[in-house]
Amino acid sequence: MYSREVEALLRKKGITPGDMIRVVLNKKTFEGILLPRPEFGDQGALVLKLKNGYNIGLKPGVGTKLEKLEHAKETFTFPRVKLEKREGLPNVTIVSTGGTIESKVDYITGGVHMLVEPEEMLAQVPEILEIANFKVVSPMRIASEDMLYQNWQEIARAVAKALSDSHGVIVTHGTDTMHYTAAALSFMLDGLTGPVVITGAQRSVDRGSSDAFMNLLCSAHLAAKGNVAEVGICMHASSSDGFCNFIRGTKVRKMHTTKRDAFRPINNRPIARISPNGAIDYIDDERRRRGEDRKLRVVAGYEPRVALLKFYPNSDPDIIDYYIGKGYKGIIIEGTGMGHVAVSPADEKYSWLGHIKRAVESGMVVGVTSQCLNGRVNGNVYRNLRLISGTGAIYCEDMMPETALVKLGWLLGNHKRGDAARMLSKNIAGEITERTEIDFF
Amino acid sequence: MYSREVEALLRKKGITPGDMIRVVLNKKTFEGILLPRPEFGDQGALVLKLKNGYNIGLKPGVGTKLEKLEHAKETFTFPRVKLEKREGLPNVTIVSTGGTIESKVDYITGGVHMLVEPEEMLAQVPEILEIANFKVVSPMRIASEDMLYQNWQEIARAVAKALSDSHGVIVTHGTDTMHYTAAALSFMLDGLTGPVVITGAQRSVDRGSSDAFMNLLCSAHLAAKGNVAEVGICMHASSSDGFCNFIRGTKVRKMHTTKRDAFRPINNRPIARISPNGAIDYIDDERRRRGEDRKLRVVAGYEPRVALLKFYPNSDPDIIDYYIGKGYKGIIIEGTGMGHVAVSPADEKYSWLGHIKRAVESGMVVGVTSQCLNGRVNGNVYRNLRLISGTGAIYCEDMMPETALVKLGWLLGNHKRGDAARMLSKNIAGEITERTEIDFF
Repeated sequence: MYSREVEALLRKKGITPGDMIRVVLNKKTFEGILLPRPEFGDQGALVLKLKNGYNIGLKPGVGTKLEKLEHAKETFTFPRVKLEKREGLPNVTIVSTGGTIESKVDYITGGVHMLVEPEEMLAQVPEILEIANFKVVSPMRIASEDMLYQNWQEIARAVAKALSDSHGVIVTHGTDTMHYTAAALSFMLDGLTGPVVITGAQRSVDRGSSDAFMNLLCSAHLAAKGNVAEVGICMHASSSDGFCNFIRGTKVRKMHTTKRDAFRPINNRPIARISPNGAIDYIDDERRRRGEDRKLRVVAGYEPRVALLKFYPNSDPDIIDYYIGKGYKGIIIEGTGMGHVAVSPADEKYSWLGHIKRAVESGMVVGVTSQCLNGRVNGNVYRNLRLISGTGAIYCEDMMPETALVKLGWLLGNHKRGDAARMLSKNIAGEITERTEIDFF
Repeated sequence: MYSREVEALLRKKGITPGDMIRVVLNKKTFEGILLPRPEFGDQGALVLKLKNGYNIGLKPGVGTKLEKLEHAKETFTFPRVKLEKREGLPNVTIVSTGGTIESKVDYITGGVHMLVEPEEMLAQVPEILEIANFKVVSPMRIASEDMLYQNWQEIARAVAKALSDSHGVIVTHGTDTMHYTAAALSFMLDGLTGPVVITGAQRSVDRGSSDAFMNLLCSAHLAAKGNVAEVGICMHASSSDGFCNFIRGTKVRKMHTTKRDAFRPINNRPIARISPNGAIDYIDDERRRRGEDRKLRVVAGYEPRVALLKFYPNSDPDIIDYYIGKGYKGIIIEGTGMGHVAVSPADEKYSWLGHIKRAVESGMVVGVTSQCLNGRVNGNVYRNLRLISGTGAIYCEDMMPETALVKLGWLLGNHKRGDAARMLSKNIAGEITERTEIDFF
């Protein structure tokens, strides 16, 4: 709802959200569709979708003129493209799973809805059809916060199937849990033979400011001709439309709620930079390349009884016993700094030491990571750390907490406990970077 | 333990960790104290503490020469400074609480120990005595992972007392939970009259590469003459020794496990940059300044029954009922993206919606933040978000999860439930940044 003053003004002019209106403010004229107000802070400012697709907030004041032009009847509709096979182009399969990249704003309610068909996405970037022959499969279409491990398994199987007759695969996905899915696919797709490019959008495709177009274009180039056989996320590398990064699926994290360059590599460099014109600049020479002799195998087992626990001052370690009681098989602790939890606080009740020991003794695999995200944990430097690693908890090197969680669920879904524990701190899919031989510090 | 080959080599030469040795490798000669190996990756490399304080890893190979020079008897010892009052200098109180800045490495065991006296710190930076007259009080000396809210209360009281006769206060603190303490002091010290400068070190003071010296020096300048009346963290701004940032206590986070510039502002700019030569460059004109008419009051109530819950795919929302059952008063959820949790997953068991509703109805205050850390949550954009905010959960704007947790515990420790809920999303100590009037997006 707009503020009482603005609502009164709109009523007087017979304007309701969805109408095309003209606003004259400080001698400047703005024309656009009036959007409903719920999503923004200042309830005294009109929000207009301009013809160039941008939204703008305008605060009416003395001398502001307001005029109704016409009533907008419905939401934006897109033409659907016809996918025709063209000679000489490589095959690319799009595995469509949902998310903002497949959504548009309903101007009447202000809400965001799924597009009618995933092919509508491609209609936004017609030049994409010059890059490859596309096939679209859609195992699900959901918001990414609703993804479960069963969805990861379905996506892994769809990707593997697609790679049998495609050079590469694009997975369109909501951005919220995109990096969890990226980690899951990295582990589940063993012996990968081509690029698996996960992409999405921070802003829906009907917005002029949408990042969907360039993300799709760069992803298409990489999937069509990239010399890489890894799972990664391909999204804007900066807040402008210069190029995209392709970041390893086990080393990437959403680091901003709304910015187009929200996805950042953690403890790693991007694998490649891709320009919308098709130039691919490989940054990581250690990347796995195509054309090596491999056999793709889907290893999709997953044990969902794994928990990610963040430590903080006065966090009650009784939570560990709660998970023991529920029959959980593994816990990843997000410690502070190099992997600390409270060990000798003034109030003994808050010491995590005995609880971690009990978890390990009960047969759980306990991994330790850092809420710093960047850098490496180390179970040896300080006395408290040595006490924790003495319980049998496993320090997970420079692995992100989220990746460690997904890896542990995957390990326990496919291996015996002892093997899973042993493999947790060993690199499998680029999730752990080796140390350098000589450390200066 | 070193590798078997290296251990054999050391045994042959009668060398044990702690000995001063000479190594000739690739025609270069290194002299230093042999450190024990536990903390590093490559067990085949000798680790030497050189005379310049740096540690180096040296991998013995063909032609390497090894020689024992003398046996190191004990750990580094520092002179203590004598704190004498000098005319014309401002007063600064150091509230010493522990951490790496007050520690040194034990060369025999490789462990890190607390210094005998906090004054030993000052002996490392004798030029600091030209800046102010220092007094040292030490309410506790603990590793920061062992900090509890009771410690925050003690520190708040010590700071308030110190401010009655000091221009500013330096709090030395372990880095791991430093930003939690910074947030707690920001809320507990109401009507602050001078700078409260929290500092520490990522590397102990006996290391040539320690960041302690510059951090102490910059903190001393700011505490002695800074025109600011806020709580903040003053640590290295880059990996070189150029200058320190002073970052608002509610907007700062440890973002690297080991780097000296680990502390970064989140959704905010630093308040000031401080050079070790004493130059203070104020960046934030909105900062609270000294000399305004205020009365410092310690508002130290704290309700420890608050939890920080991170959402992730397949996270079981039953955890919320666990906290309801334990009589918790508040929960901060670290959602994904703009504050999402699963609402309509394929397996209903993983939907958080009903559980959050139940928590709010049971009288708990539930706040929503983002694990992206950067950016703002928004309970209105997507359907799932509107469903969550419809339960009465409070979207915490651009507040960090850790700050929101500390704020909620503080609010519930000093106010009635309804007031606490209302104040959670309103700015009190710089923890929430207002939106700009016109948003382009």
